[in-house]
Amino acid sequence: MRVDRLWSNARLATLRADLPGLGTIEDGVIAAIEGRIAFAGPRADAPSFDAAISQDCEGRWITPGLIDCHTHLVHAGNRAREFELRLEGASYEEIARAGGGIVSTMAATRAASPEELVEQALPRLDAMLAEGLTTIEIKSGYGLTLADEIKMLEAARALGKARDVNIATTFLGAHALPPEYAGDPDGYVAEICQRMIPALAGRADAVDAFCEGIGFSAPQVRRVFEAAAAHGLPVKLHAEQLSNLHGAALAAEFGALSADHLEHLDQGGVEAMAAAGTVAVLLPGAYYFTRETRLPPIDALRRARVPIAVATDCNPGTSPLTSPLLAMNMAATLFRLTVDECLAGMTREAARALGRLDQVGTLEPGKCCDLAIWDISEPAELVYRIGFNPLHARVFGGRP
Amino acid sequence: MRVDRLWSNARLATLRADLPGLGTIEDGVIAAIEGRIAFAGPRADAPSFDAAISQDCEGRWITPGLIDCHTHLVHAGNRAREFELRLEGASYEEIARAGGGIVSTMAATRAASPEELVEQALPRLDAMLAEGLTTIEIKSGYGLTLADEIKMLEAARALGKARDVNIATTFLGAHALPPEYAGDPDGYVAEICQRMIPALAGRADAVDAFCEGIGFSAPQVRRVFEAAAAHGLPVKLHAEQLSNLHGAALAAEFGALSADHLEHLDQGGVEAMAAAGTVAVLLPGAYYFTRETRLPPIDALRRARVPIAVATDCNPGTSPLTSPLLAMNMAATLFRLTVDECLAGMTREAARALGRLDQVGTLEPGKCCDLAIWDISEPAELVYRIGFNPLHARVFGGRP
Ligand SMILES: [Zn+2]
Ligand SMILES: [Zn+2]
Repeated sequence: MRVDRLWSNARLATLRADLPGLGTIEDGVIAAIEGRIAFAGPRADAPSFDAAISQDCEGRWITPGLIDCHTHLVHAGNRAREFELRLEGASYEEIARAGGGIVSTMAATRAASPEELVEQALPRLDAMLAEGLTTIEIKSGYGLTLADEIKMLEAARALGKARDVNIATTFLGAHALPPEYAGDPDGYVAEICQRMIPALAGRADAVDAFCEGIGFSAPQVRRVFEAAAAHGLPVKLHAEQLSNLHGAALAAEFGALSADHLEHLDQGGVEAMAAAGTVAVLLPGAYYFTRETRLPPIDALRRARVPIAVATDCNPGTSPLTSPLLAMNMAATLFRLTVDECLAGMTREAARALGRLDQVGTLEPGKCCDLAIWDISEPAELVYRIGFNPLHARVFGGRP
Repeated sequence: MRVDRLWSNARLATLRADLPGLGTIEDGVIAAIEGRIAFAGPRADAPSFDAAISQDCEGRWITPGLIDCHTHLVHAGNRAREFELRLEGASYEEIARAGGGIVSTMAATRAASPEELVEQALPRLDAMLAEGLTTIEIKSGYGLTLADEIKMLEAARALGKARDVNIATTFLGAHALPPEYAGDPDGYVAEICQRMIPALAGRADAVDAFCEGIGFSAPQVRRVFEAAAAHGLPVKLHAEQLSNLHGAALAAEFGALSADHLEHLDQGGVEAMAAAGTVAVLLPGAYYFTRETRLPPIDALRRARVPIAVATDCNPGTSPLTSPLLAMNMAATLFRLTVDECLAGMTREAARALGRLDQVGTLEPGKCCDLAIWDISEPAELVYRIGFNPLHARVFGGRP
């Protein structure tokens, strides 16, 4: 069998759903043709390969490239000063007066050129790529005007040109109420539904919203979802983070790809997600950074067999986290996910949450040959260590 | 003034104790002669320099090189499998049967050659150096025989030859009871006092112990401290981590450099530490990893003006953390230390905790020219971000 590249003498965590645990293959081989996996399995089962380039992995572990399915990676400025003021005991008003809060990120993002947005996002993206990330979802939501939301989504796409990484874009116009619509959230939702979504249909891969007392109500989110459905866009939702507005059930009603955060999710929401196949995206970085104490209902999600993904939620206000490995450690340490759940959560289940499980997320023939090759003795090391990066090499589309 | 190297156009966080906050100097210059700081101050106050090598820092921030004053960096093996089993609900007995616990690290460390200990510690050390670390404390305590403790301390010293970093070694024979002395802790303490400490006097910079129900009692620690004092060795203590055995007060009685952990410290302990000038070393990585909920008495420490340092506690069982930056973020996020306290805690106060404040920890003439140069807009960014490394360059002994 003639192939472009071959990785041999590797231990594979295939994440194949038809195998138990991580779908481990001890003496494994991966072959790539034209950027796709042609074979991933035991050496004993492999055909004879004629490879243009061949690499001996010396017993290293190979996992699918990591996937971060929930980020706000594109934004301007940071909120370090706000963080500092909070630690010094500043009140909400004092922070607002000092220019803090989401409005400050909105103002900085609106003021930034597309090139500046890319330039500021690149170091964050590079930190993630250095840990074996090969696919990342990036949301808009700090522009809050049609032009600024388009600018954010184009910056997200541009990152995929600047680096070897798959980008999934999400329109999050319903992130916060822009000052132009102060006191008129329904007016802003109408703008989202009638003007923004129609204009963004070709530019975004999905539509998201922030369903919360400080965000948008469930009836408002329903209107956003109806507009998305009318334009053929899949939906997802920031749901049940700070309170229970039954957003996850609403998302499930629209067949959402995922409902994310979920600290206040109830049993009805769990069951609705299970029935719809909606992925639960857990965001332990936000839980950690905001010192949340209420845990998502992990056991209920497990019992109902809701797929569980893990993501960084990389954002300047509540999760300035740029480490997929640390997101996994936090999911284990803080949420008690198992090692297998954490690794599946940033590979196979994250792919499912992006509607891309046919393309990425497992080591299976036909999928993109996106690999992470690790200097570890066992996969648990990827979750156990804190602030340590054992990546040996990253492979994107069959190329190092 | 003729100098070897000059860094100009920099913003300095000098950490000088005679200046408020971080001792910030906006338009700063640092000059080095023979590895020492010859000048660190405002350009306006600087003499005219004739520098062999000069670097324009383009407005970047310079802090003292970071200092980690509490680590168990040298050890063999890891406890990833134990971590995995715990997440799967394994009992203490099951983990012990699977070869977990501190005994497993002891066995692996005893079995390792000095070269293997160095080889296994180097990736962890390199991760820390990549974040601007220039001084690190390393404890023994997994050998628990004279020969194996010597092996660990020599491996620690060898790391200082393999890399450009200052090493402070600490003898922690009283870390755990070795199986040879099962049921006879006093016998092991006698071995420590009569045989180990006399033999190690030239090889270790300090003596430490683990004062805890599962470690050694206060009377046993007192005997260890008396032996240390008899051999002119300064002491420090793992104190009040899981319960209150009044270890911090005992440490203070011996003029200890530091008392570390301190979640269960009481007011009497705080006052004893304040009177003795004993540094409180906070270890948020262990608090995080063990899911501790009891906070150290931060406000009481502040009120009593006890110096506060922050360290990684890098160890395989309760804090597999190799990121000084993350230790600072955890100290802020979990313990609510301010940005200034976090940065002082990994520079000036960490130097104090090692008895090396005359050599390192601040940007002042006469000290080692150990610098961290950062791509940041303000020092708060070093504490605010999670899993991101903005180091531009590290300088050790005046050399990049
Ligand atoms: Zn989010
Ligand atoms: Zn320790």
